[in-house]
Amino acid sequence: MSKEFSAEVRVTYADTDQMGVVYYANYFVWLEIARTEFLRFFGVDYRNIEKEKKLALPVIEAYCKYKAPARYDEIIVIKTKVTQIKNSTLRFDYDIFSKDSNELLAVAYTTHVFIDKQRRPVRIPEAVKEIL
Amino acid sequence: MSKEFSAEVRVTYADTDQMGVVYYANYFVWLEIARTEFLRFFGVDYRNIEKEKKLALPVIEAYCKYKAPARYDEIIVIKTKVTQIKNSTLRFDYDIFSKDSNELLAVAYTTHVFIDKQRRPVRIPEAVKEIL
Amino acid sequence: MSKEFSAEVRVTYADTDQMGVVYYANYFVWLEIARTEFLRFFGVDYRNIEKEKKLALPVIEAYCKYKAPARYDEIIVIKTKVTQIKNSTLRFDYDIFSKDSNELLAVAYTTHVFIDKQRRPVRIPEAVKEIL
Amino acid sequence: MSKEFSAEVRVTYADTDQMGVVYYANYFVWLEIARTEFLRFFGVDYRNIEKEKKLALPVIEAYCKYKAPARYDEIIVIKTKVTQIKNSTLRFDYDIFSKDSNELLAVAYTTHVFIDKQRRPVRIPEAVKEIL
Repeated sequence: MSKEFSAEVRVTYADTDQMGVVYYANYFVWLEIARTEFLRFFGVDYRNIEKEKKLALPVIEAYCKYKAPARYDEIIVIKTKVTQIKNSTLRFDYDIFSKDSNELLAVAYTTHVFIDKQRRPVRIPEAVKEIL
Repeated sequence: MSKEFSAEVRVTYADTDQMGVVYYANYFVWLEIARTEFLRFFGVDYRNIEKEKKLALPVIEAYCKYKAPARYDEIIVIKTKVTQIKNSTLRFDYDIFSKDSNELLAVAYTTHVFIDKQRRPVRIPEAVKEIL
Repeated sequence: MSKEFSAEVRVTYADTDQMGVVYYANYFVWLEIARTEFLRFFGVDYRNIEKEKKLALPVIEAYCKYKAPARYDEIIVIKTKVTQIKNSTLRFDYDIFSKDSNELLAVAYTTHVFIDKQRRPVRIPEAVKEIL
Repeated sequence: MSKEFSAEVRVTYADTDQMGVVYYANYFVWLEIARTEFLRFFGVDYRNIEKEKKLALPVIEAYCKYKAPARYDEIIVIKTKVTQIKNSTLRFDYDIFSKDSNELLAVAYTTHVFIDKQRRPVRIPEAVKEIL
């Protein structure tokens, strides 16, 4: 559970609000990008989980603590790791940095549950569990 | 084809960008709200078109001309009408106003096509055609 | 601190994702709408706080627990109350319901800090404190 | 005016809607990314235009024609060129492709005007004009 991956995104104009900084809800889109790239890097293709295994991994809990504002056009680094694996749930933790200043902008986590087409919780697929 | 309906939305912080005005892509979400409320008002429930008739009405063309900026917290009025009905396509035209100042902020249109589950164009359902 | 206000929003197509439910980040936009309407209802115009008092109230912490999915076109009720007032920070708690089924879809909170133009924390304005 | 630049984005879950494809308004965010990368590639830093020259380049017209749906997780290529330069306005044209299939998904354009802090149109800065 010590695997870590850093994804990068660039702040768009769309991300900002009239305070001149990134709107708080948009960080959660970055978290989605970060965990998808984390999974891809370690060999789990989330698209296939949905398409072939007919499973999904919705968010059941999301948290973000904002420490310093993210600004237009800067590159954001999101360091992601899996910090908890249970029978059917998974938790990701994220540290969000400004690439340029290396300042920690936010810390966050999301909890997820594997579900089938009927939205019933299922055990995490072994292949995924082994990788993580 | 002279039916008209005005929907209202209030500008959120999420809608704005660091120019202090509404980000241009977000107007297209208002258009979606406006045409859905237009349809609902005249007796067409778009949700049922998808759920029961297994049809969808995706956008095939979208245009907006921005004349004056929309600002945080103001109420926006979107006047909608259907300006073209063909075999399987439909065009909505929109005038977007500031409720307070009555200033015309933008004009827009969207063109749509009725499709089935295989994404093939189908004739507009008679019930819908009659209403519009 | 027992004041409570319920705001309503309707789920748009833009809110949904390919799982057929509302994308998790979009709940946080609803929270913004809910607390702005809460403040407006009790006599605090957030736009004026920014414009006239030159203060802002950014989010420093955001949390949401998702219990059941919100679906396209349904009306969502967000019950909001202030659950903590400190020198310069404020916490809102939210219960998010489906209007139709009255099912509790999510619980959430956000913490905020009053800041001035230099992004320094300032005491909550007395007028706001009294109202809340 | 024959300069061309291709930017790439990956479709997120946030981009999709319950039709299982990318929501139409989200293409306009890609256009923003594409033209910003176009400008950066040819040596124009849009952030500096705002910060140092105190100018902005809002959208006054936006159009998109949707030919085939963009799908979750695929990489989208946006080919951008400047197709018109007038005294104070600029037009970008975009071809939007699926990287994998090379299918043309959409064509689009946006028109922009250079404005100053008072939102008055100004001549395009010479340095920008020469580059484009």
